[in-house]
Amino acid sequence: MNPTEKEVLQAYDNVKNHVHQTPVLTSSLLSEISGASLFFKCENFQRMGAFKMRGATNALVSLSAAQKEKGVVTHSSGNFAQALSLAAKTIGIPAYIVMPSNAPSVKKAAVKTYGGQITECEPTLKAREAAAQKIQQEKQATFIHPSNAKDVILGNATSAYELLQKHPDLDIIVSPVGGGGLIAGTGLAAKYFGKNCDVWGAEPENADDAYRSLQSGSIETNAEADTVADGLRTTLGNINFPIIQETVKGIILVSEEAIIGALRLIWERLKIVVEPSSAVTLAAILKEKERFQGKKVGIIISGGNVDLDNLPF
Amino acid sequence: MNPTEKEVLQAYDNVKNHVHQTPVLTSSLLSEISGASLFFKCENFQRMGAFKMRGATNALVSLSAAQKEKGVVTHSSGNFAQALSLAAKTIGIPAYIVMPSNAPSVKKAAVKTYGGQITECEPTLKAREAAAQKIQQEKQATFIHPSNAKDVILGNATSAYELLQKHPDLDIIVSPVGGGGLIAGTGLAAKYFGKNCDVWGAEPENADDAYRSLQSGSIETNAEADTVADGLRTTLGNINFPIIQETVKGIILVSEEAIIGALRLIWERLKIVVEPSSAVTLAAILKEKERFQGKKVGIIISGGNVDLDNLPF
Repeated sequence: MNPTEKEVLQAYDNVKNHVHQTPVLTSSLLSEISGASLFFKCENFQRMGAFKMRGATNALVSLSAAQKEKGVVTHSSGNFAQALSLAAKTIGIPAYIVMPSNAPSVKKAAVKTYGGQITECEPTLKAREAAAQKIQQEKQATFIHPSNAKDVILGNATSAYELLQKHPDLDIIVSPVGGGGLIAGTGLAAKYFGKNCDVWGAEPENADDAYRSLQSGSIETNAEADTVADGLRTTLGNINFPIIQETVKGIILVSEEAIIGALRLIWERLKIVVEPSSAVTLAAILKEKERFQGKKVGIIISGGNVDLDNLPF
Repeated sequence: MNPTEKEVLQAYDNVKNHVHQTPVLTSSLLSEISGASLFFKCENFQRMGAFKMRGATNALVSLSAAQKEKGVVTHSSGNFAQALSLAAKTIGIPAYIVMPSNAPSVKKAAVKTYGGQITECEPTLKAREAAAQKIQQEKQATFIHPSNAKDVILGNATSAYELLQKHPDLDIIVSPVGGGGLIAGTGLAAKYFGKNCDVWGAEPENADDAYRSLQSGSIETNAEADTVADGLRTTLGNINFPIIQETVKGIILVSEEAIIGALRLIWERLKIVVEPSSAVTLAAILKEKERFQGKKVGIIISGGNVDLDNLPF
């Protein structure tokens, strides 16, 4: 059964003293270009620079005392690694992090700063899972999945929850789709706290597994995932997929060119540093303008951890 | 005689409904690195992306009806051109803008968006002044200097005024030094509204005219000004120099490497897009750490209009 309204409220109560209540920005020019009223929920200003701090915190707060003592382990292409490290440091427990060898250097450095203990592996899901399982056995650490865990999804839901507390009359919220943990949480928040608020996902054409999964009714994978939106290369899981099926209206696919164009607009006009993964949302709105015309649209800006030495412009 | 407290308050009254009250950001990591408590006053979030909107607005509000009808003219390497164009558009008068041919393309495009009428000239002060004078005569437009005009300086003072309203106990405010209009305004605000609040300037080593001017007691120029901080290549003027002499404690020179390093820190840690000209401040604080140790330090982030195709990283 999918999580309840009460569980989302409990998650908010769990995380609210450990995470930033992030600002909501607007830009008259971006609203004008899109034909909609856009409200950007800026998780790039979250602690460690991404919404993942919310899910990680809720997952750790929910552990038993015995579990906390042994520590936690995860595999992540970047942001969740930082989030779990910082959340674990905050409550004083060890965090073991499996990272693909091609993860951005700025993300590896940040994990170390936050006290996470890194094990590198080949950049495949199989290699990540094997490395994490080994640590799980050796250290008796609790495995926390970056996106396919109920407590993580509930923690992620608190971003859209805050957005809807501030702007209760949003018609639509658009969220990036990667591993599915953010959009599932966003869907739950819109279902319980919105007023007929639809949730749409935005996904790179080059990593369109979620789009295909909603069409086929079962979890699809990406043979390749060659996208600048490096946070969106992962695939859905058995816990978040049913939530997405229930709460998400549909997914809009966007080209690499459109992602980079939207990224540039956000940097130039909002004057904020966001990840390419966050820009899929604006790219989707600009692609399907008629769908958003005249609407009040929330946008989840998922994070701002970019490698300045490898910018797409 | 330098401007009075009453004149700063009048300027705030003139501009407050036309400009954004910009946010003040903090970063625990940047404060930790510096050994001081840093408060970033974010004029990059100002209308048109820079503090110059404040000075331009105050100058235009202060014009007579007859002057408004003929319009205004200025020469500017970028941000003031946008500011005057947008302020003029807001109150419905023409703005004629002389820009050097090597100004960043994003700045030229923005001037056009705001309705400014551009005349390009050679990138020398002499060519700029000649072109502006020609337009002044032909159109009977009022010349508004980007930095060396009392009303502009008073408008600029409203940024530090707002900062001190929010954080009245700042020990120091650090401002970039270019043409002198921002730091002169900052000095006035600190003098009248701070509690023993010192103002320090930060300037590129490669455009150290203001540093030398304070030493010699007369306005010095730059033979060359080859700095990534493109907003700081200009020199002081006869109206702002006496204010700077009276209200500024000193100027700290920073290398190009230090500017780029500080720029990177601000982008990566604060997640905001700021101009190289804004990063001289943090570079100065990190260079002379002992001076700022344990102090509450305000930083004027002057603007965020960068050309994403020409980033220094």
